[in-house]
Amino acid sequence: MSILLKTRETFLRVRSNNYFESFVAFIIILSALNVGINTYEGIPTNYLNFLSVIDYVITVFFLIEIIIRMISEESLKKFFQSGWNIFDFIIIVVSLIPAALFESVLLLRLIRVFRLLRLISIFPQFRVLIESLIKAIPRVGYVILFMFINFYIFAALGSIFFSEIDPLHWGNIGLSLLTLFQTATLEGWPDLMYDAFAYNPYSWIFFVVFIILNSLIFMNMIVGVIIDVIVRENQKEDPENIMLLRKIDSDLQKVLGNKNNAKKR
Amino acid sequence: MSILLKTRETFLRVRSNNYFESFVAFIIILSALNVGINTYEGIPTNYLNFLSVIDYVITVFFLIEIIIRMISEESLKKFFQSGWNIFDFIIIVVSLIPAALFESVLLLRLIRVFRLLRLISIFPQFRVLIESLIKAIPRVGYVILFMFINFYIFAALGSIFFSEIDPLHWGNIGLSLLTLFQTATLEGWPDLMYDAFAYNPYSWIFFVVFIILNSLIFMNMIVGVIIDVIVRENQKEDPENIMLLRKIDSDLQKVLGNKNNAKKR
Amino acid sequence: MSILLKTRETFLRVRSNNYFESFVAFIIILSALNVGINTYEGIPTNYLNFLSVIDYVITVFFLIEIIIRMISEESLKKFFQSGWNIFDFIIIVVSLIPAALFESVLLLRLIRVFRLLRLISIFPQFRVLIESLIKAIPRVGYVILFMFINFYIFAALGSIFFSEIDPLHWGNIGLSLLTLFQTATLEGWPDLMYDAFAYNPYSWIFFVVFIILNSLIFMNMIVGVIIDVIVRENQKEDPENIMLLRKIDSDLQKVLGNKNNAKKR
Amino acid sequence: MSILLKTRETFLRVRSNNYFESFVAFIIILSALNVGINTYEGIPTNYLNFLSVIDYVITVFFLIEIIIRMISEESLKKFFQSGWNIFDFIIIVVSLIPAALFESVLLLRLIRVFRLLRLISIFPQFRVLIESLIKAIPRVGYVILFMFINFYIFAALGSIFFSEIDPLHWGNIGLSLLTLFQTATLEGWPDLMYDAFAYNPYSWIFFVVFIILNSLIFMNMIVGVIIDVIVRENQKEDPENIMLLRKIDSDLQKVLGNKNNAKKR
Repeated sequence: MSILLKTRETFLRVRSNNYFESFVAFIIILSALNVGINTYEGIPTNYLNFLSVIDYVITVFFLIEIIIRMISEESLKKFFQSGWNIFDFIIIVVSLIPAALFESVLLLRLIRVFRLLRLISIFPQFRVLIESLIKAIPRVGYVILFMFINFYIFAALGSIFFSEIDPLHWGNIGLSLLTLFQTATLEGWPDLMYDAFAYNPYSWIFFVVFIILNSLIFMNMIVGVIIDVIVRENQKEDPENIMLLRKIDSDLQKVLGNKNNAKKR
Repeated sequence: MSILLKTRETFLRVRSNNYFESFVAFIIILSALNVGINTYEGIPTNYLNFLSVIDYVITVFFLIEIIIRMISEESLKKFFQSGWNIFDFIIIVVSLIPAALFESVLLLRLIRVFRLLRLISIFPQFRVLIESLIKAIPRVGYVILFMFINFYIFAALGSIFFSEIDPLHWGNIGLSLLTLFQTATLEGWPDLMYDAFAYNPYSWIFFVVFIILNSLIFMNMIVGVIIDVIVRENQKEDPENIMLLRKIDSDLQKVLGNKNNAKKR
Repeated sequence: MSILLKTRETFLRVRSNNYFESFVAFIIILSALNVGINTYEGIPTNYLNFLSVIDYVITVFFLIEIIIRMISEESLKKFFQSGWNIFDFIIIVVSLIPAALFESVLLLRLIRVFRLLRLISIFPQFRVLIESLIKAIPRVGYVILFMFINFYIFAALGSIFFSEIDPLHWGNIGLSLLTLFQTATLEGWPDLMYDAFAYNPYSWIFFVVFIILNSLIFMNMIVGVIIDVIVRENQKEDPENIMLLRKIDSDLQKVLGNKNNAKKR
Repeated sequence: MSILLKTRETFLRVRSNNYFESFVAFIIILSALNVGINTYEGIPTNYLNFLSVIDYVITVFFLIEIIIRMISEESLKKFFQSGWNIFDFIIIVVSLIPAALFESVLLLRLIRVFRLLRLISIFPQFRVLIESLIKAIPRVGYVILFMFINFYIFAALGSIFFSEIDPLHWGNIGLSLLTLFQTATLEGWPDLMYDAFAYNPYSWIFFVVFIILNSLIFMNMIVGVIIDVIVRENQKEDPENIMLLRKIDSDLQKVLGNKNNAKKR
């Protein structure tokens, strides 16, 4: 056990070393560039081979590091309670699968892109950002759910009204949802409308109501999030103000108390 | 009457039961999926029949529930004073119309979609959301009215200038309003402009002024709503702060009062 | 003079009469609808004639009213110092020009649309709105000027780079400014880019830099206005808080003063 | 040295002279218009020649002025520590290159546009604006970096999935990044999706996830910047409030101290 602890300490020392950290970041970015360069043609093979060897060494290092982290945790169950640990674990395990196993070039390339996610996992600032994005979801949870119901009802209506006119866009509720998503991004919706217009002169109501409703809800969502964050921000600062007021209040009580005592005497 | 009360109590107990609530939500969502699945082809009829039976049972249950609610209210007039009661009533009544009555398949399908609105009516959080959306309208009421006048004047101008060049988009004030709505979503407006450009080299002024004016007004609207909400939010919190200050103030008056009394003595 | 005063009073009484106000608003809205209906074909002439007579009567009434307002002001110069008075004056004068004078139908129709501006002039809430829009301009004045310089420099660059490739969009600096306005609304810019792309593989830089810069500046503008308004809003509320604090402070000085006096004695 | 100081003073006096400042601004704006007018055809050569002479005189004046500024600084190193000094220096030096040196008309025109940047350099308000834009970047630094990683991973995926279907848009990671930028501006993305749709019915997931993720991150960015600015704004105002509270607090301590002393006596 003491050997394990020593090894772990060594690993932690190595990992928290500034030069090593920069080196790892440098390799990951090289590996990211690698993925990008691979999409072009006519890159010298030597360079690519060299980079993939270093990339693999780093992967092995991360494997050893995560094993140490798993062992040093009280139990495996506890280790896997952290979402980020699971995230790291999956990326490393998938990265380890030898390229030879993949028959298709497509999968091999996907795995390489997958490794880029380590960029997010390694730097704590990105973890914070993703956590804040995830935190932002429940804040507007019911609005998003309401938006979805709204989409669903309009998609059902769209399928009923336009499925025969324009089956490519409104053929079934799945296509309709996609078409409404497109309409919500305000992209190409006049074409959809004028296609339907030719068959039914009231079809504009469908689109105009949907867009107005959606932008209203969206505005509500933005305002909601901003207010929510501002209120939290203010609550963080307030205490200083309020604490001083409370102190003054209780001090005044003492003054009044003394007075009253003096009177009574 | 006591029987009615007992029945009502039983109903309320059943409705507020957690398992039952989840079951109702589950059925409504199934029924929503049902509407969606119906837009595809080749779904087994048995499954659809089964679901529509359960859906109908739930509708009948809601019917009984709303009747109890109507009876238990002091008067029918009072019951129909609440907008949500009217909303529930209409949905339930329309849902009850037997499918056989509809000759057209279109209407039957529309009724089914209509039932999905119960999703909004059942969960109180959605009621709150819709009420907040409705509340948001008067806040920006005059801005919206002003926007409409703005649209109307530009639509009249558009009809006058471009109706002969492009009758599909500017043929009459109705079409012009729709075209301006499209321009306000910034979708496909350059095509409209270049069509008019060919006839009148100054037609760009019309579009550029409309877009700048609109985005200015829109920005004003967003800022207005945000400020309005923030001010309300702050007013809710303020009292704590102000109340403490007032208490301190009145306490100080006592201290000063004692002083003065002491002086006078 | 006393006759004038009496007449003026009568006019003011008539104008501030609730029924009359509603009647005027009703006629103006009818007149607005009239303009709209005129863009359709096949409207009964009787109806249109009737409405235009009433509209003319109202115009004459407003003429009399504005004359009274002009006379009752100390001097004509003072009357024309208010922007809204000038606005009213021009609308009324132009509205008075008899239709027979216009040879072209186009001008006649434009005058009719012009009259709709009275909708904004009559209701004080719209005046407030327009004044707030005008007030919003200097707040972001330098940002707008900077945006224009930005547009101008990019338009000059665009004319230099792309004028031979695509003279319709980049032929001279005027067309370039219009094309950049279109790009700023993010509408159809990829087409412009791919047209230029075929000639110069670096032309994407022009578009990407322009869009990023513009949205950055635009975001800055929105944030600027919001902050500006919030700060003003807070300053309005603050005094209550601060005034109480100042009162408490000065009261405490008295307490301390008494103490010190007591000590000295 | 005293001659230099006198010359410098004279220059500063000339430059800070109101009439001269307006004159310089006027000439720069004329020169800007000049660049614009040059993009049209058939402008009288006399006018253009006259303007370019004045423009050149101004450039020489600025050259002298910057030389004085450089000499009057303690050392050249210190002079070049200010970004705006470097900016001025480069503009002036490049503006000085005689037109005859340029064989290509393109470069000559670019230099003329380049001179317009002096518009930003001369007015201090624009300097402040650009500095505030630059300051805004680190505030949202990690969000922008995260956005870029997000773009990069999706670009890699896009190249893998669609490079054979649509090589013009997804042929390599550079083109993919550009295409994703276009998708992020919500312009023409449905066309890209339906092109891919024909080959793979799940390709919509790629676009929908990218757009939702992007708008979520973008919203986060806007809210982040707004909150950041508001918090800073509030911190500027707070002191007045807090200082009064602290003063009251310390005064109360004196009152209490007196009391306690009185008791002890």
